[in-house]
Amino acid sequence: MSSPTTPSHLAFVKGHGTGNDFVLFSDPEGDIDLDPAELAAIADRRFGVGADGVIRAVRSSRLPEGAASLAEDPAAEWFMDYHNADGSPAEMCGNGIRVYAAFLIDHGLLSLVPGEAVSIGTRAGVKRVRRLTEDDFEVDLGPWIVLTGEVRVAAGGLDVPRPGLALGVGNPHVVVALSADDELEGLDLSTGPALQPTPPEGANVEFVVPADPLIEDGVGRIRMRVHERGSGETLSCGTGAAAAALATRHWAGTTAPDAWRVRVPGGELGVRVADVDGQPHVFLSGPAALVFDGELEL
Amino acid sequence: MSSPTTPSHLAFVKGHGTGNDFVLFSDPEGDIDLDPAELAAIADRRFGVGADGVIRAVRSSRLPEGAASLAEDPAAEWFMDYHNADGSPAEMCGNGIRVYAAFLIDHGLLSLVPGEAVSIGTRAGVKRVRRLTEDDFEVDLGPWIVLTGEVRVAAGGLDVPRPGLALGVGNPHVVVALSADDELEGLDLSTGPALQPTPPEGANVEFVVPADPLIEDGVGRIRMRVHERGSGETLSCGTGAAAAALATRHWAGTTAPDAWRVRVPGGELGVRVADVDGQPHVFLSGPAALVFDGELEL
Repeated sequence: MSSPTTPSHLAFVKGHGTGNDFVLFSDPEGDIDLDPAELAAIADRRFGVGADGVIRAVRSSRLPEGAASLAEDPAAEWFMDYHNADGSPAEMCGNGIRVYAAFLIDHGLLSLVPGEAVSIGTRAGVKRVRRLTEDDFEVDLGPWIVLTGEVRVAAGGLDVPRPGLALGVGNPHVVVALSADDELEGLDLSTGPALQPTPPEGANVEFVVPADPLIEDGVGRIRMRVHERGSGETLSCGTGAAAAALATRHWAGTTAPDAWRVRVPGGELGVRVADVDGQPHVFLSGPAALVFDGELEL
Repeated sequence: MSSPTTPSHLAFVKGHGTGNDFVLFSDPEGDIDLDPAELAAIADRRFGVGADGVIRAVRSSRLPEGAASLAEDPAAEWFMDYHNADGSPAEMCGNGIRVYAAFLIDHGLLSLVPGEAVSIGTRAGVKRVRRLTEDDFEVDLGPWIVLTGEVRVAAGGLDVPRPGLALGVGNPHVVVALSADDELEGLDLSTGPALQPTPPEGANVEFVVPADPLIEDGVGRIRMRVHERGSGETLSCGTGAAAAALATRHWAGTTAPDAWRVRVPGGELGVRVADVDGQPHVFLSGPAALVFDGELEL
């Protein structure tokens, strides 16, 4: 194994899942070493390519974090080496992993016909990703938890603080139900909502409005906007969509459906609940789009 | 001449001038017809390539607007067909035309060694662009006007409205002098400044702070931030930098230098005043960077 180096040119693909966008590049053998500053320069929207995150396609066997993935599931050949736009490593991204699967297929690194699933290594453990159609994928986000104790959420455009439900879907969320579309549209999320009590690590905050009717053909339907800790308002947040559907399902009680459609500013995501080995898991589905190929001088 | 069509693939280059960024593509014979919605989709930062503007490299002889350019200067072989991020056509862009020149050279469409100048057609008339060094270019923005009558400018972070000087540098500007760096940094330009009286077509508003000392080695030096009408705060505005330097020169009186360095959030620009055919013109200089090559499916 030669030691990783910084190449002079980097071939990449730009893609997005419901407007959450990524620069992806192929490095099967782990030859490419980009430091946080270089990754941040690539993600810069004016001086670089521009993206919410940078994803390196690397074999699990070729990087230290991949050992845990292979121990968990020897079939997890590919690892999603995800970094945030600031160059810091991140554990998982529900929109990113769909685009990553589409990238692996597009590059001939993975064969996956609609209906098939694949195990992908991440810093948050191995995730199962199923290809639903040509361009739609579903990821098993695993079990979730609903936390007890109400959180009060104050946000721009709301007259008074509203009650929120705290959930853990790999990362922390607080979900607030609003009564109508105009209340959702009137929100000012240019500054972050204030949470009382304040979660120690912060939280992404989702504001949801039920569709009318809430349930159609056995599928629950909601609209949402999201403020992500560290990023501000975004067009889409995969785990946030899951949290929003799970919270609404929680509020709706025992008759609530297990399948949900979540309308986000950048498109629409599917969320469903199903048992895996006797334990309820939450699944996130949605489109993955590869927009253009590029080559960058480093 | 075959009629223009929408191609299935578009090869492009992404570039920027002090953080003002552009998608550029080559269409010498005017074969490519992209409508405003397609141009806006390319400029979208999440779903497309992302840019402040889209520039088509086309021969002046191959589009209707080019006839006026060739009548003005038969040497203006190339036309800068510039569109804003919303797909609407624009007349000129002081940062864009430098990047356009670099693109033409990079694509072998133009031969221009440092020191040489070229005439380029734009919707605002023919512009002379000089290559200063490998990556630096200067454009003659032509004559300017200082308007009489004070404008009062209110902006977030300012205690009281401040007096502004209105200038025309191809487009309308209002320049406000601030006293210190911390006042400049404390500005909140997330909403547009309020102008009293309100110019009929609005204006870009520049806030400037003199460097200490203002003049060094015969060159005036200022810092500036800019709010562009229709775009909000940007990293750089070429005509804005020219307006800021011209306003400061105006205030400094008869002993003021003709050469200026303007520090903008995205880098540094040069502004100088010199006579052309007995009339004072303002020149804008700065870097042009080509960042990556790409190919997009349309």
